[in-house]
Amino acid sequence: MPDTPSVTDEQVAPAVDDLDTIVSLSKRRGFIYPSSEIYGGINAVWDYGPLGVELKNNVKRAWWRAMVQERDDIVGLDAGILMAPQVWVTSGHVAEFSDPLVECATCHRRYRLDELPGAEDVSPADAADAAIIERLGLTCPNDGGPLSAPRRFNLMLKTFLGPVEDEAAIVYLRPETAQGIYVNFRNVQQSSRKKVPFGIAQIGKAFRNEISPGNFVFRMREFEQMEMQFFVRPDGATAAFEDWLPRRRAWYETLGVAPARLRTREHQPGELAHYAKKAVDVEYRFPFGWKELEGVHNRGDFDLGNHARASGENLEYFDPSTEEHYIPWIVETSAGADRAAFTFLIDAYREEEVRGEKRVVLGLHPDLAPYKVAVLPLLKKRSEIVEICRRLRADLARDVMAVYDDTAAIGKLYRRQDEIGTPWCVTVDVDSLDDGAATIRDRDSMTQERVPIEGVKRAILDRMAAARG
Amino acid sequence: MPDTPSVTDEQVAPAVDDLDTIVSLSKRRGFIYPSSEIYGGINAVWDYGPLGVELKNNVKRAWWRAMVQERDDIVGLDAGILMAPQVWVTSGHVAEFSDPLVECATCHRRYRLDELPGAEDVSPADAADAAIIERLGLTCPNDGGPLSAPRRFNLMLKTFLGPVEDEAAIVYLRPETAQGIYVNFRNVQQSSRKKVPFGIAQIGKAFRNEISPGNFVFRMREFEQMEMQFFVRPDGATAAFEDWLPRRRAWYETLGVAPARLRTREHQPGELAHYAKKAVDVEYRFPFGWKELEGVHNRGDFDLGNHARASGENLEYFDPSTEEHYIPWIVETSAGADRAAFTFLIDAYREEEVRGEKRVVLGLHPDLAPYKVAVLPLLKKRSEIVEICRRLRADLARDVMAVYDDTAAIGKLYRRQDEIGTPWCVTVDVDSLDDGAATIRDRDSMTQERVPIEGVKRAILDRMAAARG
Repeated sequence: MPDTPSVTDEQVAPAVDDLDTIVSLSKRRGFIYPSSEIYGGINAVWDYGPLGVELKNNVKRAWWRAMVQERDDIVGLDAGILMAPQVWVTSGHVAEFSDPLVECATCHRRYRLDELPGAEDVSPADAADAAIIERLGLTCPNDGGPLSAPRRFNLMLKTFLGPVEDEAAIVYLRPETAQGIYVNFRNVQQSSRKKVPFGIAQIGKAFRNEISPGNFVFRMREFEQMEMQFFVRPDGATAAFEDWLPRRRAWYETLGVAPARLRTREHQPGELAHYAKKAVDVEYRFPFGWKELEGVHNRGDFDLGNHARASGENLEYFDPSTEEHYIPWIVETSAGADRAAFTFLIDAYREEEVRGEKRVVLGLHPDLAPYKVAVLPLLKKRSEIVEICRRLRADLARDVMAVYDDTAAIGKLYRRQDEIGTPWCVTVDVDSLDDGAATIRDRDSMTQERVPIEGVKRAILDRMAAARG
Repeated sequence: MPDTPSVTDEQVAPAVDDLDTIVSLSKRRGFIYPSSEIYGGINAVWDYGPLGVELKNNVKRAWWRAMVQERDDIVGLDAGILMAPQVWVTSGHVAEFSDPLVECATCHRRYRLDELPGAEDVSPADAADAAIIERLGLTCPNDGGPLSAPRRFNLMLKTFLGPVEDEAAIVYLRPETAQGIYVNFRNVQQSSRKKVPFGIAQIGKAFRNEISPGNFVFRMREFEQMEMQFFVRPDGATAAFEDWLPRRRAWYETLGVAPARLRTREHQPGELAHYAKKAVDVEYRFPFGWKELEGVHNRGDFDLGNHARASGENLEYFDPSTEEHYIPWIVETSAGADRAAFTFLIDAYREEEVRGEKRVVLGLHPDLAPYKVAVLPLLKKRSEIVEICRRLRADLARDVMAVYDDTAAIGKLYRRQDEIGTPWCVTVDVDSLDDGAATIRDRDSMTQERVPIEGVKRAILDRMAAARG
């Protein structure tokens, strides 16, 4: 079912050629800023501005709605970022969660082995080979200096809890949210009375000390995951996998991502993570190539089995109808909230020509748009018009994010809203004072419809419901 | 306006006498579990279960709705947990954000000086006095052993970014979200075009290496803040303070907290934090006494002034109407999402007697309740009834959190929903097959109303809107 990629980078154009277009729009309009910018920034951390936080919250809400609210077989969880350190020993992260790091002897720059030209396809065995640098004839891309042999560099960030900074006080910042679900499996199953098959979904921050973060918010050291672990009978894992993979791909399409810019790619045996029996990525055509957007993994009984052995606790599930006891197998769907928001932002971007003028539009799905509606006075000198607009915005804002703007002429106000993806603009004009009606203008079609002012909110809510299908 | 407390612990009873009642309900029903419990737990971190994550998300959503969505003078932000380390030097946290720690020479237990019997009221000057232990005659509460002189213990957790764990790589986990707002002030103001007075609101995790965490989720090492910084002309700070304090207290009351269990308490001059010109706490009567629920602070120009000086960046605001340049003053409202959720949970708890039987009710405001509605079949043997219920739940779940349960008799099903705060139960019975109607049962009044099945969702949404006022 998952097609090994038949489409290459060259065959599908990205929605935006130049990432800088998005980076610059993001800063100018308040989606995403460089973190701590007044102090020169901090590498690989980004801050969400007023529009960005709404977009990202909408992404998280849409995921929660699809994965928890609408399902009667999935419940939510919100575990801590800090967990008992033993969790990461059992999970394999202390031993395995590392990248091969090499350093230049002259300029001291550091690289992940597989990002050096000529080493893109090294296997894990190669990366453990002290002679690999010599064998492949690798030198520093910066100054041509000699490179060290690769050493394993663990990606977990650590801190110290309590007053003494020693080994015993080490606690890790979780590098993934999934483990919080596994160690809570029994508590959740017992308190929610869910029967297998059922899932546990979680959204939360994770941290990785990436050697080479980059591509804007694509790979950050601090990021937010949206993970769901689906617990099944061992013989039900394959069917669950085949159900979840197309479902997760479809989620992006339902929220507006162009199907042509999505593909699935199955991990080859040598590429599989230590916990995975099978893994397929949903990939997106970013401006910098096809990259992972979300992973669907059959993890077998690796997680609950290991945690049961290491903790000495019984993590078997008792099936009351068949009277069987077993360790459930797990099918995981693992997405990133930042990466999803970034994808929706890029994919929605388009430039058009309207009556000889360029307009930039973010064609965001109404569920994702930061503001659902802008209320704009056609004549801000007339205080009655401004008054109507302000009252209308306040009424709309009880239900949806709504914004008022009167700081430019109407054409410019429309362009501003187009550029941030506001699906509908409501204008109040001189006629409104007579007929009590306002004009709803559609972002994409630019058509206008006259609606009684007291019916504007209903019209917006109906259009939102229609867009949701 | 803020009343220095005239009510004492003894004059107002807490909603729940024994914290264990809430801790035990929380674990049993899936609100809050001890973190990493299968590995013996991790001190002062708690995980939110399926009901807890809904409650906490609802608290955050209600706050965002009141503080961002409904206001046209406040915008949101979501800055990183990791920030440039210089931020915490400028803010004063590296130098000042510490507690006096003492240690017993024999049993090695550690205490915060002011929690030792006899040292509750020590001043900061006393805490810096090496002879204070001797002067007050303090000994270890555990074994009576001799105590060390107090040393300043900084509460910030730190980690290392990049491959080398040295001083240059130290990065702190933010101990408060507010600084993320200050360093983004100019980016937010410019991209949102807001004019002073305006506010920036943020919800996010913060971390403190507390010497003595405790009281369940009241004081944790990992917690979530809801902070809003309101930027005003210097001469407008007092008025803004007087506006925000009652507004923030009223927020808790609007969402159901008993007014009698809230009070305000002004910080005395010796108690004021280094940044504050004035500070008033909204306090709640917890089972362990009156404690801070939220703080409202006049911070003057401390924050933007210091960050401008330290970064060399111009953080003045230019007022286009008066042509003045000035550093805005800040009035801050600082609340905790965990503490607020905990407060709503405790305050909603009640035990009642109904027809000779005890019932436990969480009288949560409908906006806060994890499930808005439960759909219950009166006769689960009849497949048509179950079918109707499942379809109804799925339809409700497109708009609100709804749950289906058929695993007990109806009386028990009602009690289960009462105990987790579900405002409405919908039952489908044999008559429903004839008349196409269902019964909506109200959690608090226990009255029942017969409603056409296709009108159930509208009835629930109308009741939710009515509860919101």
